[in-house]
Amino acid sequence: MTIKDVAAYCGVSVSTVSRVLNDHPDVRDDVRERVRAAIRECNFVPNNSARALVSSRSTAIGVVSRGVDNPFLSSLIRVLGREIHQRGYTMVLQQIPTSADEVRAAAELEREKKLLGVIFLGGRFNYTEQELRQLTVPFVCCTYTNTFGDLREDAYSSVSIRDEEEACKAVEHLLSHGHRRIAVLLDDAGDSSIGQLRFQGYKRALEKHGLDYDPGLVALTGAYDMKDAYDGVCALIDGGADFTALMVISDALAMAAMKALTDRGRKVPEDCSVIAIDGLDMTNYTVPTLTTLCQPAAEMARESVDMLTGIIEGTGVHRHKLVETTLREGASVAAPRR
Amino acid sequence: MTIKDVAAYCGVSVSTVSRVLNDHPDVRDDVRERVRAAIRECNFVPNNSARALVSSRSTAIGVVSRGVDNPFLSSLIRVLGREIHQRGYTMVLQQIPTSADEVRAAAELEREKKLLGVIFLGGRFNYTEQELRQLTVPFVCCTYTNTFGDLREDAYSSVSIRDEEEACKAVEHLLSHGHRRIAVLLDDAGDSSIGQLRFQGYKRALEKHGLDYDPGLVALTGAYDMKDAYDGVCALIDGGADFTALMVISDALAMAAMKALTDRGRKVPEDCSVIAIDGLDMTNYTVPTLTTLCQPAAEMARESVDMLTGIIEGTGVHRHKLVETTLREGASVAAPRR
Repeated sequence: MTIKDVAAYCGVSVSTVSRVLNDHPDVRDDVRERVRAAIRECNFVPNNSARALVSSRSTAIGVVSRGVDNPFLSSLIRVLGREIHQRGYTMVLQQIPTSADEVRAAAELEREKKLLGVIFLGGRFNYTEQELRQLTVPFVCCTYTNTFGDLREDAYSSVSIRDEEEACKAVEHLLSHGHRRIAVLLDDAGDSSIGQLRFQGYKRALEKHGLDYDPGLVALTGAYDMKDAYDGVCALIDGGADFTALMVISDALAMAAMKALTDRGRKVPEDCSVIAIDGLDMTNYTVPTLTTLCQPAAEMARESVDMLTGIIEGTGVHRHKLVETTLREGASVAAPRR
Repeated sequence: MTIKDVAAYCGVSVSTVSRVLNDHPDVRDDVRERVRAAIRECNFVPNNSARALVSSRSTAIGVVSRGVDNPFLSSLIRVLGREIHQRGYTMVLQQIPTSADEVRAAAELEREKKLLGVIFLGGRFNYTEQELRQLTVPFVCCTYTNTFGDLREDAYSSVSIRDEEEACKAVEHLLSHGHRRIAVLLDDAGDSSIGQLRFQGYKRALEKHGLDYDPGLVALTGAYDMKDAYDGVCALIDGGADFTALMVISDALAMAAMKALTDRGRKVPEDCSVIAIDGLDMTNYTVPTLTTLCQPAAEMARESVDMLTGIIEGTGVHRHKLVETTLREGASVAAPRR
């Protein structure tokens, strides 16, 4: 069923059907009604994408998301999908585990799916110019930037928060409640990923306030998953670490951390305060409600698509945007008992 | 950089490079080493998808997921993406709110992206033959089937649990602990969606065990989101409903329900037991751990892709598979106090 069939069925021209579809005023009411009825009866579905008509051209934008089971990334993917679609492109999504190499995955995807560009989610911060030669299309780092790598600023785009500063802010929020023995839950800080910057922010906050950094207050998760986070906090407690507050690098891991504290008999926030960074809707419903620094996820996703489509369409150049978090006060932070 | 460039660079034939790429034994060791070194140096990325080489053919499989912010659907999408990709197809994902019409969305997507087939997630149970004429490609209902519609069995495929029976089982688990005043939290039961079948299961369990159905023990959520679920349970409590246990139709909504109970001063499970259906990893980390009937999400996603690609490739016919849940005992169910 095409627009021609609808026109023939109603005995009108194709351009009349088109005018009805586009709510153009210049159509007689009885004709408009007849065409609309025909569209309903025939179950005709108009093709909204002018781009798709140019069938020889790819419309594919790759989204390579590193870190499965990460609800923060799921919320970004949802907005990316909508924004990419609304601009007439197609999202080709690949979700890979944190252990996989996102650049390699994107390069393979580029060849297989004829991508016009790539948006990376949750990637490493240390790309080299050499390794990025695998990609021949423009790319945007969404939620991070190339802090530890040697990419030229004009070779890629990024949207991110200031990870180090925001982590520092989170720790200062705990300090402002009177905490001095503050532990931190990180993913393995060796991989130049988000954990490393937030760990620097943690240490900077301590230093700024004249507190010594104690390696015995660092809990590590290997796999950036809830099980590992749970085990890491249990190990910290079981090892006898003495702390009254915990800064966690993400909301999902903070859920697991609060569970570990509870299972070990420590009440949140009475025995241990918890703060995180992300701002998932879901952590409004943890017991207690999580206090967290909210990233503007929808804005970050929208901005990434704007940046990439601007470059694809030749109307923009690579740029780097820093966005702010906002504190969402839950009930997981209180003054220490002692 | 193509395979031809690598061959020219090494001074060997294209077929030799191909043999090295495919780990074929019939290549001299020094040549193999030389080609491998060239591949590394040139950052050559082989094209894994033979299908993609036939560039005129679409490889697109649509995934239309109804219900944003539903972590159960996110986990399915992840597996669907991997399985679709591994079979050489491309996943074209569209996530729509529960208020939107998934058939319409799929029909538009089919035209725009030249889909070979569609997998629906979280759709309605009452499709008519008439409305499905909008789609001209095969489709699979993943996590549900056409219980209330008039589709012919051989017109589509499905993978689902027996929603009514599983809900009955969940309520019987509460009954077996001695509960008699059991409330239920549903999405609006009027839309012939998953809520309606699970509501029937709830009523069937009561009837089977000689208990009267009390409409005063039904909490409704309009939008299938956590905020609505939270408000629904608060309204139930504030209205004076007398219950010692609550059956919730999904894990995510159960998280919100437990939060509402806690905020209203009711301890879970001491004052109110909670059971749900889904089995998210995340609800292993709620306080208390949620007792839930786990759907085999990975199996359901894999099976959906098997069904659809079988039909696309002409090796399968439409079929309907029912899968079983398994009880995951958490700490949210106990005997009633009185």
